[in-house]
Amino acid sequence: MTVTTIPPRSGTAFRLAKGECLTVIDPQGEQVADLVVFNAQDIREAISSGRSLDYASKLYLTTGDLIYSNRSNVVLTIVEDTVGRHDFLLTPCSRDTFRIIYHDEHPHQGCFGNLEAALAPYGVASDAIPVAFNCFMNVVIAPATGALTVEAPLSRAGDYVKFCAEMDLIVGLTACSALQSNNYSFKPIEYRID
Amino acid sequence: MTVTTIPPRSGTAFRLAKGECLTVIDPQGEQVADLVVFNAQDIREAISSGRSLDYASKLYLTTGDLIYSNRSNVVLTIVEDTVGRHDFLLTPCSRDTFRIIYHDEHPHQGCFGNLEAALAPYGVASDAIPVAFNCFMNVVIAPATGALTVEAPLSRAGDYVKFCAEMDLIVGLTACSALQSNNYSFKPIEYRID
Repeated sequence: MTVTTIPPRSGTAFRLAKGECLTVIDPQGEQVADLVVFNAQDIREAISSGRSLDYASKLYLTTGDLIYSNRSNVVLTIVEDTVGRHDFLLTPCSRDTFRIIYHDEHPHQGCFGNLEAALAPYGVASDAIPVAFNCFMNVVIAPATGALTVEAPLSRAGDYVKFCAEMDLIVGLTACSALQSNNYSFKPIEYRID
Repeated sequence: MTVTTIPPRSGTAFRLAKGECLTVIDPQGEQVADLVVFNAQDIREAISSGRSLDYASKLYLTTGDLIYSNRSNVVLTIVEDTVGRHDFLLTPCSRDTFRIIYHDEHPHQGCFGNLEAALAPYGVASDAIPVAFNCFMNVVIAPATGALTVEAPLSRAGDYVKFCAEMDLIVGLTACSALQSNNYSFKPIEYRID
């Protein structure tokens, strides 16, 4: 089975047919991958954090959980997950993230810019890129205050999460570009379709 | 100053000019109001939970906090808040919510249907209705598991939250239609613009 590598701080997009499964692999450990999907027949239908978290009644989706679209259709089922801690709250990192949070003077385009470039050939406008399912991202919540802290991912080398497509999809996937999310080093992400 | 009432289980939409402020009032207590906003000059720019939570690095936005758009512009500033507990995670309740979570055979159209109807005259398509800022909604998170529980709002009669517009906006606002979110009774919401 072919494994494709996404180089550090980059992204890609591809089609995933209904019934196919996508395995997102963290080959070195502690590396986040932002995942977004769109209905291949109608890209106005997209992954929805709000609907998925609501219907699951929990923040941390893992094996057996369903990911819904903004039309309340199931887009992906999580069928295997060796980590169990991913984020579905925060926007893909972007020039704005680096400007607002990191105060960078010459910000990298981030996952958002990488997704924008990769998804443009499929007709997805940048305004339509939603909150991503951030594989391996470890956001810790202080219960009383709701303060969010981005900690090192819990993933170790070779950990993975496998999603099966419940409709024909356009997928956007990155090797995340934000220092804090990846324990301060940028590593590749691998994926496999079967 | 004119106070407008949104009847139980309904919604409305209106323009809010840059510099104007919107006060959302819970006249009887324990009633949620879902709020969405769009740039009046370009409705592809909309309120973004993912960017707002990311830039604030916390879940519970309150007085002094900023609400961002999907283009990372500030759309609203929260200038007063007598409650301090609102939700910015979950999708507006909808026919799908009532079908999937409540197993209703004849589901109400919910906040989503009410927003859809109210925003249609402004050209907002239903697919473009994002995660709302759910005023007074009290979602409790179990820190270890991430389990989400919708509890009774902490708002008492007369509590309010005041937002000021940082750009010309189209606003969608509801008196929420979900039993659990409103401690099992449907009440009106009031609002004032000044």
